[in-house]
Amino acid sequence: MAYKIAILGASGYTGAELVRLIDQHPGLEIAALSGERKAGQAMSEVFPHLRHLDLPALCKIDEIDFAGIDLCFCALPHKTSQEVIRDLPKSLKIVDLSADFRLRDPEDYQTWYGNTHAAVEMQEEAVYGLTEFYRDEIRAARLVAGTGCNAATGQYALCPLIAAGVIDLDQIILDLKCAVSGAGRALKENLLHAELSEGYHPYAAGGTHRHLGEFDQEFSRLAGRPVKVQFTPHLVPANRGILATTYVQGQAQDIYDTLHSAYAQEPFVIVLPFGEVPSTRHVRGSNFCHVGVVADRVEGRAIVFAALDNLTKGSSGQAVQNANLMLGEDETTGLLMAPLFP
Amino acid sequence: MAYKIAILGASGYTGAELVRLIDQHPGLEIAALSGERKAGQAMSEVFPHLRHLDLPALCKIDEIDFAGIDLCFCALPHKTSQEVIRDLPKSLKIVDLSADFRLRDPEDYQTWYGNTHAAVEMQEEAVYGLTEFYRDEIRAARLVAGTGCNAATGQYALCPLIAAGVIDLDQIILDLKCAVSGAGRALKENLLHAELSEGYHPYAAGGTHRHLGEFDQEFSRLAGRPVKVQFTPHLVPANRGILATTYVQGQAQDIYDTLHSAYAQEPFVIVLPFGEVPSTRHVRGSNFCHVGVVADRVEGRAIVFAALDNLTKGSSGQAVQNANLMLGEDETTGLLMAPLFP
Amino acid sequence: MAYKIAILGASGYTGAELVRLIDQHPGLEIAALSGERKAGQAMSEVFPHLRHLDLPALCKIDEIDFAGIDLCFCALPHKTSQEVIRDLPKSLKIVDLSADFRLRDPEDYQTWYGNTHAAVEMQEEAVYGLTEFYRDEIRAARLVAGTGCNAATGQYALCPLIAAGVIDLDQIILDLKCAVSGAGRALKENLLHAELSEGYHPYAAGGTHRHLGEFDQEFSRLAGRPVKVQFTPHLVPANRGILATTYVQGQAQDIYDTLHSAYAQEPFVIVLPFGEVPSTRHVRGSNFCHVGVVADRVEGRAIVFAALDNLTKGSSGQAVQNANLMLGEDETTGLLMAPLFP
Amino acid sequence: MAYKIAILGASGYTGAELVRLIDQHPGLEIAALSGERKAGQAMSEVFPHLRHLDLPALCKIDEIDFAGIDLCFCALPHKTSQEVIRDLPKSLKIVDLSADFRLRDPEDYQTWYGNTHAAVEMQEEAVYGLTEFYRDEIRAARLVAGTGCNAATGQYALCPLIAAGVIDLDQIILDLKCAVSGAGRALKENLLHAELSEGYHPYAAGGTHRHLGEFDQEFSRLAGRPVKVQFTPHLVPANRGILATTYVQGQAQDIYDTLHSAYAQEPFVIVLPFGEVPSTRHVRGSNFCHVGVVADRVEGRAIVFAALDNLTKGSSGQAVQNANLMLGEDETTGLLMAPLFP
Repeated sequence: MAYKIAILGASGYTGAELVRLIDQHPGLEIAALSGERKAGQAMSEVFPHLRHLDLPALCKIDEIDFAGIDLCFCALPHKTSQEVIRDLPKSLKIVDLSADFRLRDPEDYQTWYGNTHAAVEMQEEAVYGLTEFYRDEIRAARLVAGTGCNAATGQYALCPLIAAGVIDLDQIILDLKCAVSGAGRALKENLLHAELSEGYHPYAAGGTHRHLGEFDQEFSRLAGRPVKVQFTPHLVPANRGILATTYVQGQAQDIYDTLHSAYAQEPFVIVLPFGEVPSTRHVRGSNFCHVGVVADRVEGRAIVFAALDNLTKGSSGQAVQNANLMLGEDETTGLLMAPLFP
Repeated sequence: MAYKIAILGASGYTGAELVRLIDQHPGLEIAALSGERKAGQAMSEVFPHLRHLDLPALCKIDEIDFAGIDLCFCALPHKTSQEVIRDLPKSLKIVDLSADFRLRDPEDYQTWYGNTHAAVEMQEEAVYGLTEFYRDEIRAARLVAGTGCNAATGQYALCPLIAAGVIDLDQIILDLKCAVSGAGRALKENLLHAELSEGYHPYAAGGTHRHLGEFDQEFSRLAGRPVKVQFTPHLVPANRGILATTYVQGQAQDIYDTLHSAYAQEPFVIVLPFGEVPSTRHVRGSNFCHVGVVADRVEGRAIVFAALDNLTKGSSGQAVQNANLMLGEDETTGLLMAPLFP
Repeated sequence: MAYKIAILGASGYTGAELVRLIDQHPGLEIAALSGERKAGQAMSEVFPHLRHLDLPALCKIDEIDFAGIDLCFCALPHKTSQEVIRDLPKSLKIVDLSADFRLRDPEDYQTWYGNTHAAVEMQEEAVYGLTEFYRDEIRAARLVAGTGCNAATGQYALCPLIAAGVIDLDQIILDLKCAVSGAGRALKENLLHAELSEGYHPYAAGGTHRHLGEFDQEFSRLAGRPVKVQFTPHLVPANRGILATTYVQGQAQDIYDTLHSAYAQEPFVIVLPFGEVPSTRHVRGSNFCHVGVVADRVEGRAIVFAALDNLTKGSSGQAVQNANLMLGEDETTGLLMAPLFP
Repeated sequence: MAYKIAILGASGYTGAELVRLIDQHPGLEIAALSGERKAGQAMSEVFPHLRHLDLPALCKIDEIDFAGIDLCFCALPHKTSQEVIRDLPKSLKIVDLSADFRLRDPEDYQTWYGNTHAAVEMQEEAVYGLTEFYRDEIRAARLVAGTGCNAATGQYALCPLIAAGVIDLDQIILDLKCAVSGAGRALKENLLHAELSEGYHPYAAGGTHRHLGEFDQEFSRLAGRPVKVQFTPHLVPANRGILATTYVQGQAQDIYDTLHSAYAQEPFVIVLPFGEVPSTRHVRGSNFCHVGVVADRVEGRAIVFAALDNLTKGSSGQAVQNANLMLGEDETTGLLMAPLFP
């Protein structure tokens, strides 16, 4: 018998991706889909690629009977999510895909998001959802906070290195290349096809991107002292994918060995042979993350690359992986499909 | 226990797509992969998106022991395929993805392909692989000839209409828009990104495209008299997808009813509500075909649209669907994944 | 001394394209740029690709002193345009790029656009801006109505054939493939990169697209009797370009000769050698229109293709071409730049 | 009277771009076009977007009478170029777009290109073609070596900073994002549309890209001591454009002031307001380079961005700019067209 699942905010891209994944998951069953502004519409209207599925129509959140729900994915906008989750039954297992519970410290939250948190008391309860590094806590958690998709990519490249102390903590540069679906389905001029295709540009340059809050929190925790990386994301004309190019100082072979050993048993994080580089197109639509290490010609420097699909491993796939742990399912169930190429 | 599968010509796009599908199929297991020019290489070198899989290395065809193979997919180039299949064990079940066994009449074959067939005696044996119209024959077949991807798309729009006699057989126009992966992984100047992206153009215009051989054969068979359609394909800057825009003369409501009833029980062919139109992006990466009917403002005319993914429903997905029938598996096994959007 | 030019509605794509063209035109000089919602902003904020130019800031229309203006381009939204033009000085030369003055008959206008025209008296005055067919009228005109970009493309393929009577007037099918910039810079979900790229679909199918008003008007005028074509546009993932695939019944050689002779002296409409097909990528960014004719394998049928850049020959380039005529400049001045490829 | 121009290697992208630019240049006239393998073909066959032009057919180099030629652009492949140029008349002015004369030191050349130079004696004669930094030498030169397109982009960001000593010379990281036309029209699997679109990846990572030879030569010359930067290029799914993201250590305001003052009088290099970032789409098809400076949140660090079109400012536009100087024309003639957007 399958677990009953609700998806709040099912009319966005991460919501649709959750439906795609859960549909192929033998242990999960979609019981409710919410979408405040599109309540009453069939999912096939909002996402015609799902028209072959027999899905509940979109409803308002307060129409859902959570008594029958085993686990709830929240794919709501930032700030809305905390208000909704605050009022959900306290017994309900929740995987939140928004930014609202990623930062543990209320002050950090206020610094990066500019408002007081509406559910401060739950910030501490929430477990940070980077599965490979919080597996045990997630298994026991009631509320898991999905990571930022950029934040996940950068952490796959760097976390083991910072924990092992094999790189200079004051000389870390994260140059990210992001596809457009990470920005969601919002109507913004810079997301139009005519504005975006055939060109690329940096954004939030210089250290203003909110995912830095996650980097600071997690890297400092691992290092046992404050770590502040440089981080510049770039928007690239593709729909899915994040590529992190990480410039670090340390011995390339140590760096490679550290990553190779850290991920040796991981089902979804694959370290390429030394010197090989990943491509976003080789993880597209999948839950895999490819990590590559190259020694630079400048002695004592290396480049660490990580590539994943922002909608899958970067958000909805990660969310299902965490739900698997929370529900006692095998962690990989429903997530082993190969990337779509070409 | 799973059926043992060989894929000949696994280094092309349809080969990789077969691997993607079979990997998720509980009843099939890849036992051998051939690639003459890349023999000895690991599949992960040729297709890094498959590096998470434990696959046999590419080998030469004559290195395969077919005694242990239950079914063989041939994804070889045209002309090569007939020579290879001619010499395979006569007991082996085969799904051929090339053009070599699509035309039953040796003269037709010579007309469209310009050479004498190397396995004329097998042309008659081969069953045409358009599953929805040859289901019983395929179930009993040893050799199934996968259809052209353009030919499949046009036939989903037209076959039931021609069979039912609800359209004028002398006024059929098929305007197709095709994505680039249909042209394969060949090194041709016009397939380069810089040549192809940001523009679109017709090709093989005026009735020279080889898939017309299939249209003529199948449409004439259904009509019981010669039917010659007009067919113009166009190359569009996307990787996957075929959209057929079919201009027909007849009553739109009759046309809709005919299609709706013909596909009512089909798991993969979905007829949209009357007046709605399909999009290739809503079938991308899936085995579904979406069919739409719109009445034209000119009385007595209608437009029938069909959209599918050329690499899935148009070739490798169709091949697995046929293999399921040939092996006694459920027809839909391994093929119900949702499209990838966005 | 250069003519002083005002562009109303300069914050949209056709506005920016006018600036690009006029900047290279030795006889024209931009004196005023309006943008109601962005008034006060520099053009370089709205269109950073124009930041090297010394341009007037965007203003409101009522801030412009039209006494110093020789010619005004109106790139305003439909309906707004007619209200603005109605109140402009009667001596001012105007090239309107909106749909407001394309249809001469007030009833036709109401049928296709759904509202009563706010400047009915000017509808008759306006000259239809398809330069090659209204050259003398445009030279003498005060108000020229730019054509629809789809309408222009279809007419380049068909007008000479209808005028010459070499095709069956009751069997004309226009299948168009349009790039996205034709839809403008409006914030619509279906114009987002993530929605539009990697797929394609028909829209306004069955005869509901407003450009049919122009086809009906112009084709019927040329034929001397009502002509109603079938017209289905498709949205393709590229930024610039329209390709018309026109299915006609008649002798291909007559058709070719008619087009070849009609355009023999035209500087911008190029008829390819018989049997060759055009591509949108070969006219991108230019004012050229490529026309190709192919005989179909079905006797007595032909396909006529036309390709142009919707923002240049389809709107802003056409507008400058017409302005050249109205101002007594050489028709080709500022418009002979080669396409941008790749 | 216009100068007579020959283009050797006119069948590649930089050749076609030269034709596009020269066609609009009032002082230059194309007298000969070579293309060894396509000799005898019309340019309109090889590049249909140029079919409106009256151009000489492609010929073999030894068919050209160089006596009538004032200046020759060599857009030949690396290695071929040095052999051809060695044997051209010594009085002929030459702008070479290949890599063959970029490095002055024969040993450096051998290190990066792996072979002995076939015209060592001309390496010293050649002037490095980065116009803004070698203007006087170019004016007097007979042979100018066009820069690498990546090398140009990186140098626009860094040269003034290195010369002024405002950044740490041992901590320079160049992360480049390159469009595909920079790789030329060669038939390589990784340049196919199906392989390249919808994804992105690094290449030549770790310090193996040949343009590092240029960086080392020029940066060390400016610094007066060896400078070795880190350089990682990435291939992005677009046709034109290079974006350099340069991570440097120094005071952001000093860095900005240095660049602003260095480029204050430059017609083609535009420094954006402090804190603003460039986009490749805003220079597409033009000869402009946009430079932006952003202070990082980490004290004492800054990011310098530079964006240009690899085929224009990065190669053929630069070549025409240099030819203008060599011929005594105004430096900007024929090069001031606005970018094509969208």
